[in-house]
Amino acid sequence: MTQIYDRVTLIGLGHIASSMFHAIKRAGLAGEVVGYARSAETRQIAREIGLCDRVCDSAAEAAKDADLIVLCVPVGAMSSVAQEIAPSLKVGATVSDVGSVKRAVIDAVMPHLPEGVHFVPAHPLAGTEHSGPASGFAELYDNRWCIVVPDLCDDPAEVAKLAALWRGMGSNVDKMDADHHDLVLAVTSHTPHLIAYTMVGVAEDLGRVTDSEVIKYSATGFRDFTRIAASDPTMWRDVFLNNKDATLEILGRFTEELFVLQRAIRSGDGDYLHDYFTRTRAVRRSIIEAGQDTAAPNFGRTPAAKS
Amino acid sequence: MTQIYDRVTLIGLGHIASSMFHAIKRAGLAGEVVGYARSAETRQIAREIGLCDRVCDSAAEAAKDADLIVLCVPVGAMSSVAQEIAPSLKVGATVSDVGSVKRAVIDAVMPHLPEGVHFVPAHPLAGTEHSGPASGFAELYDNRWCIVVPDLCDDPAEVAKLAALWRGMGSNVDKMDADHHDLVLAVTSHTPHLIAYTMVGVAEDLGRVTDSEVIKYSATGFRDFTRIAASDPTMWRDVFLNNKDATLEILGRFTEELFVLQRAIRSGDGDYLHDYFTRTRAVRRSIIEAGQDTAAPNFGRTPAAKS
Repeated sequence: MTQIYDRVTLIGLGHIASSMFHAIKRAGLAGEVVGYARSAETRQIAREIGLCDRVCDSAAEAAKDADLIVLCVPVGAMSSVAQEIAPSLKVGATVSDVGSVKRAVIDAVMPHLPEGVHFVPAHPLAGTEHSGPASGFAELYDNRWCIVVPDLCDDPAEVAKLAALWRGMGSNVDKMDADHHDLVLAVTSHTPHLIAYTMVGVAEDLGRVTDSEVIKYSATGFRDFTRIAASDPTMWRDVFLNNKDATLEILGRFTEELFVLQRAIRSGDGDYLHDYFTRTRAVRRSIIEAGQDTAAPNFGRTPAAKS
Repeated sequence: MTQIYDRVTLIGLGHIASSMFHAIKRAGLAGEVVGYARSAETRQIAREIGLCDRVCDSAAEAAKDADLIVLCVPVGAMSSVAQEIAPSLKVGATVSDVGSVKRAVIDAVMPHLPEGVHFVPAHPLAGTEHSGPASGFAELYDNRWCIVVPDLCDDPAEVAKLAALWRGMGSNVDKMDADHHDLVLAVTSHTPHLIAYTMVGVAEDLGRVTDSEVIKYSATGFRDFTRIAASDPTMWRDVFLNNKDATLEILGRFTEELFVLQRAIRSGDGDYLHDYFTRTRAVRRSIIEAGQDTAAPNFGRTPAAKS
């Protein structure tokens, strides 16, 4: 793989940034990768585990002379980080991000960027329930999608370079406008996460069903929800606060549909339930055919050894 | 492992029964395992793949002279199967089942059983999204729980034998009364399944977000729901129709909680969301510590090779 940027700076050193570092190194996509994290503890860990070629003690210093600066912080922190790095951005540099919502990030970042700096928002559709600088791995983006928002940048060559970086990290790349992105993600990611959080919260709250029973018997379905509901709380708080309209719209649709199924259960309409459950089964097959999940039963989980 | 029963008969040869066959054989728990399935095609497949030592063409014939008869059919079929086998059950035989609800199965089966036959309902809390006679495997029950309902049987030795069979197949065994079972499962299994079915149905319905986008971008959370929503439609229709009260109760609780979170999003109450998401994260840790799920990111799924 050829080098695409001389210097890439990652602001924020969590799960997404650390996986980017490993994926960039795997393919030799940048001459130098510089990092910064707000927390001194995170910077310390990064230095200990060799995350980034160089870790700086301020965002402004990290951004200086970089060709690409990627904001890898929770959506709610984008504005202040953009403000902080703005004075040290060089002319011709490209700023990007990895935020799970795009319209709110654009509104937060754009006003701070000086003339002569390109802005190409992006969102890699990948991640795990783990977080922090030590949780990244080079394969995270392999055969996942990265959505790039091209229309704020008037230089197609800079958009192409960012797309090439993501392809080099293993991703497939799609282009999309910010509002469509936010709606699609409300369906495929934000609403499923909120529902998983809710289900886990309900189960945890129920007095009559002790914690121990919920935990012990979780292999019957519940445990799948707990993986999603173990995702980073700060990141997800910011997602919901910043993609409010689309999430509330899809939630409304979800509740409506749930009430219809609830009524079918109450009235004993078995045909309706059976048809519904047959239709949803087909969606799974499509996802497996598209290479977006494993066909192995239970996601290929191996049963734990008997104690 | 010692042999526990001379002859075990499995009525219904789907995912649960075929896994039982392999687990019984792995540990040598029965002298002979006899099978029956209503569909001629399933019986044919079973004979071809060596599922069961002997496959019979009627339930009555399969049940004849068996020491243990396990009903492995959807809950809605339990009554007619019990009626069919009743005349051929030998005195001293034990009837059990693997149904996901227990009160409704007891109501369906009990009235048909002749004097001198024991009834020990059970429910192995294990399974995958796959179904059918070829989908079973010996490890399915390893370190999972099997719930046994002991109070309908006046011979503790027969309850102990059934529990020993499940332990021999790899399970841990708990005893519980039928109503408590149905409530616990409404929380850990039935409601999560209904919610997953609903979410997948909503995503599939949305006109503006094409099928292709929902499929392509499913790795952001949605794909986890599709696994659960790919479970057997007949089995799940019967679960909801037969555990109506507990499921509707937990669904009501779920909707209430979802509305509170929805209001927090609408009003921008970030602290409430952050606290909630932090609390649910702890549940995941408990499940992993209890050996009921893997700690590997994304359930240990390997990214598909890039095409």
